Amino acid sequence: MADTMVESDLVVRGGKRIDWIRSRMRLLAGVRAEFEREKPFAGLSIGVSLHLEPKTAVLLEVLKAGGAAIVGTGNHGSTQDDIVAVLRAQGMNLFGKRDDDLQQHLANVAKVVAAKPDILLDNGADLVALAIEAGTEATIRGGTEETTSGGDRLRGELAGKVPFPVIVINDSPLKQIAENRHAVGQSIVESFMRITNLMIPGRRFVVVGYGWCGRGIAQYLDALGGRVAVVETDAIKALEAALDGHRVGTAEDLAAWGEVFITATGRPGVLGAKAIAGMRSGAVLANSGHFPWEIDVAALRAQAVGSQLVDDSLERIELADGRHVVLVADGRMFNLAGREPKGNSIESMDIGFMLQALSLARVAGAGRTGLVPGAQPVPDDINQTIARRMVAEMGAHL
Amino acid sequence: MADTMVESDLVVRGGKRIDWIRSRMRLLAGVRAEFEREKPFAGLSIGVSLHLEPKTAVLLEVLKAGGAAIVGTGNHGSTQDDIVAVLRAQGMNLFGKRDDDLQQHLANVAKVVAAKPDILLDNGADLVALAIEAGTEATIRGGTEETTSGGDRLRGELAGKVPFPVIVINDSPLKQIAENRHAVGQSIVESFMRITNLMIPGRRFVVVGYGWCGRGIAQYLDALGGRVAVVETDAIKALEAALDGHRVGTAEDLAAWGEVFITATGRPGVLGAKAIAGMRSGAVLANSGHFPWEIDVAALRAQAVGSQLVDDSLERIELADGRHVVLVADGRMFNLAGREPKGNSIESMDIGFMLQALSLARVAGAGRTGLVPGAQPVPDDINQTIARRMVAEMGAHL
Amino acid sequence: MADTMVESDLVVRGGKRIDWIRSRMRLLAGVRAEFEREKPFAGLSIGVSLHLEPKTAVLLEVLKAGGAAIVGTGNHGSTQDDIVAVLRAQGMNLFGKRDDDLQQHLANVAKVVAAKPDILLDNGADLVALAIEAGTEATIRGGTEETTSGGDRLRGELAGKVPFPVIVINDSPLKQIAENRHAVGQSIVESFMRITNLMIPGRRFVVVGYGWCGRGIAQYLDALGGRVAVVETDAIKALEAALDGHRVGTAEDLAAWGEVFITATGRPGVLGAKAIAGMRSGAVLANSGHFPWEIDVAALRAQAVGSQLVDDSLERIELADGRHVVLVADGRMFNLAGREPKGNSIESMDIGFMLQALSLARVAGAGRTGLVPGAQPVPDDINQTIARRMVAEMGAHL
Amino acid sequence: MADTMVESDLVVRGGKRIDWIRSRMRLLAGVRAEFEREKPFAGLSIGVSLHLEPKTAVLLEVLKAGGAAIVGTGNHGSTQDDIVAVLRAQGMNLFGKRDDDLQQHLANVAKVVAAKPDILLDNGADLVALAIEAGTEATIRGGTEETTSGGDRLRGELAGKVPFPVIVINDSPLKQIAENRHAVGQSIVESFMRITNLMIPGRRFVVVGYGWCGRGIAQYLDALGGRVAVVETDAIKALEAALDGHRVGTAEDLAAWGEVFITATGRPGVLGAKAIAGMRSGAVLANSGHFPWEIDVAALRAQAVGSQLVDDSLERIELADGRHVVLVADGRMFNLAGREPKGNSIESMDIGFMLQALSLARVAGAGRTGLVPGAQPVPDDINQTIARRMVAEMGAHL
Repeated sequence: MADTMVESDLVVRGGKRIDWIRSRMRLLAGVRAEFEREKPFAGLSIGVSLHLEPKTAVLLEVLKAGGAAIVGTGNHGSTQDDIVAVLRAQGMNLFGKRDDDLQQHLANVAKVVAAKPDILLDNGADLVALAIEAGTEATIRGGTEETTSGGDRLRGELAGKVPFPVIVINDSPLKQIAENRHAVGQSIVESFMRITNLMIPGRRFVVVGYGWCGRGIAQYLDALGGRVAVVETDAIKALEAALDGHRVGTAEDLAAWGEVFITATGRPGVLGAKAIAGMRSGAVLANSGHFPWEIDVAALRAQAVGSQLVDDSLERIELADGRHVVLVADGRMFNLAGREPKGNSIESMDIGFMLQALSLARVAGAGRTGLVPGAQPVPDDINQTIARRMVAEMGAHL
Repeated sequence: MADTMVESDLVVRGGKRIDWIRSRMRLLAGVRAEFEREKPFAGLSIGVSLHLEPKTAVLLEVLKAGGAAIVGTGNHGSTQDDIVAVLRAQGMNLFGKRDDDLQQHLANVAKVVAAKPDILLDNGADLVALAIEAGTEATIRGGTEETTSGGDRLRGELAGKVPFPVIVINDSPLKQIAENRHAVGQSIVESFMRITNLMIPGRRFVVVGYGWCGRGIAQYLDALGGRVAVVETDAIKALEAALDGHRVGTAEDLAAWGEVFITATGRPGVLGAKAIAGMRSGAVLANSGHFPWEIDVAALRAQAVGSQLVDDSLERIELADGRHVVLVADGRMFNLAGREPKGNSIESMDIGFMLQALSLARVAGAGRTGLVPGAQPVPDDINQTIARRMVAEMGAHL
Repeated sequence: MADTMVESDLVVRGGKRIDWIRSRMRLLAGVRAEFEREKPFAGLSIGVSLHLEPKTAVLLEVLKAGGAAIVGTGNHGSTQDDIVAVLRAQGMNLFGKRDDDLQQHLANVAKVVAAKPDILLDNGADLVALAIEAGTEATIRGGTEETTSGGDRLRGELAGKVPFPVIVINDSPLKQIAENRHAVGQSIVESFMRITNLMIPGRRFVVVGYGWCGRGIAQYLDALGGRVAVVETDAIKALEAALDGHRVGTAEDLAAWGEVFITATGRPGVLGAKAIAGMRSGAVLANSGHFPWEIDVAALRAQAVGSQLVDDSLERIELADGRHVVLVADGRMFNLAGREPKGNSIESMDIGFMLQALSLARVAGAGRTGLVPGAQPVPDDINQTIARRMVAEMGAHL
Repeated sequence: MADTMVESDLVVRGGKRIDWIRSRMRLLAGVRAEFEREKPFAGLSIGVSLHLEPKTAVLLEVLKAGGAAIVGTGNHGSTQDDIVAVLRAQGMNLFGKRDDDLQQHLANVAKVVAAKPDILLDNGADLVALAIEAGTEATIRGGTEETTSGGDRLRGELAGKVPFPVIVINDSPLKQIAENRHAVGQSIVESFMRITNLMIPGRRFVVVGYGWCGRGIAQYLDALGGRVAVVETDAIKALEAALDGHRVGTAEDLAAWGEVFITATGRPGVLGAKAIAGMRSGAVLANSGHFPWEIDVAALRAQAVGSQLVDDSLERIELADGRHVVLVADGRMFNLAGREPKGNSIESMDIGFMLQALSLARVAGAGRTGLVPGAQPVPDDINQTIARRMVAEMGAHL
């Protein structure tokens, strides 16, 4: 849905939404105070590729407060026009709107690279790859990469080609602890309740995948009284699941037992035709992973004889044998679905964006001690600093 | 917000919303099949006073399937026009719309009583009181009362005046277990995450009141990693809270410790000026009780020097001393606030409405063994029957 | 095992054991200070029938400090000779020793009644029944009864025959909360680990009975990572178990699933030949109830072709079909088995014995407001007083 | 206490104790069947330095079944004479008895090395160090090291000097999951209840250290209703503790808050004079770490004006200012204290000893693919094999 409000109304609405987030991002508030004093980005521009929503807006404000000129674009299809309006009004050079098609989005990414930013805040290594393709990589001081998959790309197809340091944010233990373990798990149980209105106590859930996210989902479903089974092919993780008190089995084994199936593997087709064939009528299928491929929706639709959208994010799919299944959010990451999705908690993103801010300041710095060309983890002193401040924000000290 | 859609569009939209709920109310589906066979309400009319939303719609459909003529009205301010449109299209005689003012609402209640229903499905004892006032009580076979406060009224001011049996639904142990303990607690944590987007792990929550609801709220906040303190004046309940691992203290003692305060007492002013005076800046105040009086909002506003609505249901209130607090949903029951509230889980309401359906059939029955005039609890055989069917729906047997 | 130490050595050993308990019974310490001041039992004797072990010793000391002359006996088979030695050395008139046979034990009970005590501290209503039989009931001011089964006897066969008030301690909500819910459940998981050395995480437990004790056992096994199924014939309790996240079924259904079976029903033969026939080889059977009859040990032995005591409290019983089961503590209450059993926590007993002390003082009092002849619950003001003090001991106030 | 029974009686008693353990070590039972078929140690001798108790006895039996000649000694002070008697009766060449002094113990270690074993099963790197000192290392094919501290020694002072591969067992993720996380935590809560008889619900515990063990202790105390605070100097682990819902602070900050202090850091003096000075009277101090140095017992005794042993493993220490503290097991690892300690669960040790058995077979093997001289982790295929079998034993498959 495109925003048809006039620009000034968008600024008002977006501003109010950002206010709440900003008032609760206590770590970034501290960084902002430092950056205003020390101006680590004075005279530098940062090229940004990032979801443009209220939480990222606060990060961009902080970078600007540190002296950076911001030039950037959102991700395809997730740009929030009111937020962009607010940031533009602050003087940031942002391209793109929610309704852009893929063509327009790629053109926007190209515009960011063409602006020759000194530093990159990248997402999926799109900016880095394009800069190398465009031959403009020599003038870049360094950057950060938000995602693990971007990190994999930097260490894979782009290995040896990146002359500047790129700090991969998602590999920080802080992200795994605060976001992947706790925030994602809680966001998923919140979204399940919000979207389906089904009860958790006593219900039988099958969680597919027992990585950090799957573990968090299983933990919190269990904590709320659900009965949890786990599908996991790695034997060591499967043993962890079993010792954590969960039933363990294959998707096929558990098909007839489960009432709700939640995928969290990152891999395609982990819930496929065979498992679906064994499910009881009324089974609910939902995906928590980034990509919309973990549930084999095509195979499911191939078996369907009818379908009805019973709510914005709930589709009842009738199968030829008289059973039906309920598909949540068309197999897309369902904690961002529904009319009022909030995603991960403000505080977990505050940690993640302080990692971004300090890492960007590190690559901007003259000395930049210890950085090497290409992908690398967040320096440990940054992790320690952030953990210490977050613990202090939580009212404790060490 | 009034619904400005034309009637036929309302029926389509409301019908889709009811479909999902109906497909998941397995207990009522079973009751419906029985009622269609046995027609317990053949030739009888039921006068209804109830929130009119998708879950109650399924109950009314079941009563109609049992042969009842339905005449009724919603509660003041909560009527959902699309749902009413659907039920009217099925031939129910329903009064009222969302935008009715109090005057119009009371007129609607009077219309229900004037229709001389044989049986009452009451809420807060409004229909019973009005029927007695109107002198039409002699023709009423009996009824049910949804709420504890309605039950108190029947046993208090109306004691001795009600010549027919009224079964008080909320006193059933099934309601306490399924709804007050589990469903309310989970709805509250879901709503807290949905509305505030704040993290629960490591956060300090003060739950005021340790009845069934407060216990559920404390249990689930704790299960999600929150640190929980409880305010409770009854020493035995306070001991329970302490042994359940929660910190125990007075609201004043805990004011400076807490970050989020949630009231669940049913009593007015439990979070008042004195406690608010001791809170740290940024404290969040939310009420989970039925009445909007547990937080002393008037006292809070009297201390305020400014206020901003930062989100639909979040208001930042500036205090004279420079602190601010965040008030959720203006002190109203916050698990029904926000753009996408769902309230208690479908299954918990399914249990509550099967209690309604079987109790209404009991008062309709010729023999009506064991019923006496006035308020009384749900007969134990009904509780046992429902518990047994719910356990069977959950895949077990005894 | 009889104690063959000389009396003075017994006093030293017993004294040391009581010291630790006394130093941790903070509620009784407070009562003692009051009793020493107010001497509620001045000039009165209390006839006692009670397990004689370190915790009860502290109670008896407190009663004596209140001015009472103590005359009493232990239960059959549980008397701890060193503790008796300590109490005798303090001037109490106690009969019985660990090795007494049933004949001798009954003679001891008779001696207590023959001493014509003014007040009775009874256990199973033995003293009351015998006093009535002996025709000495007229001189008794009143008493307390520790157990629910004693309360049942007073309200059953002895109803109308008891001219004095008897306060039934075990019916107090404080006992249910502090002892039956928390302390018994934790004592059981401790004893399971201590006696069997088997792991709990991921293990499949079947808890038979979902009363206060069964609920506590299920809760704590679950909390330690066990997978828990519950057998319960009452539908409402079964629903509670299901909503608490436990699998629910019959003993026969769950026989092949379970690895460990724990009975907590109070009823005989709940784990009988049929369930045992369906168990997998190596199944562990343990009883937590007061009476050694919940597991049908006779039926089990009838199927056995061999047996070996593998540890003091663990017996491996070979069955004709090649399977074996492991019986814990011969089907007796296993949290009092093994070489180092501790039973319920000191604090939970402190609450229970403060209930005893204040109730005894109440029946001793001149006014004794509100007491009636026969069995009755603990007066609510006593419950409130104790809860308030316990909460204060735990560092909180109301 | 020395065992004064005659050898034949010791064999009977020890045999019965081993029977129970062996019947429950299902993984080792499977390994034994394989080893009996394949005789991986045919013609080889294994030199052993290990606690000699019932669980290790089962491991040694399995190695012998694999064709190994066993020559070995226990650790100083922990040898169980009845177990040694059983193993000797099976033909193992074992030195040492419980009452050996340090001199005698060291002589026993020397005897093992002097026997020129082909393979070493080492503990703390004692055998390896002595073999190198004795110049007999050239004839050794390889070995395993049970402990992390032994692994540190191999990588430290012995680095470059060990010509054969040594697989360090404790570094396996399986040990961390099954033993350090779950088994130790549960053993600690069991021991706390068993030794002190104090209640956990509502009690305030301070856990010093948030490594794998501290995390498990905190998790299970919390699960049983305890209120938990954590002392941790590493900021990232401290953040983890905070997000897991625990209070976080320094030992000094928490001194006056805590009632029970449990150390789990591996480091000396973490609970010292300053923290003790701030504790409330009656505070309980216990250490769960391997070394008896985490509580500064010397500093504590220096402040003491009196002391009384109130139970075998509980000492009441009077301080000059009138307070007292309770020291558990003299600051030694308290889950091995008391009259009936069981230590970690049988199954967790079964996993650990299958790691030993397969690792020893790997170093014994002709090919020994992938092994290098010196310390190294357990090969991943061994971890996966064991995890898969354990999951299967728990009733699941992948």
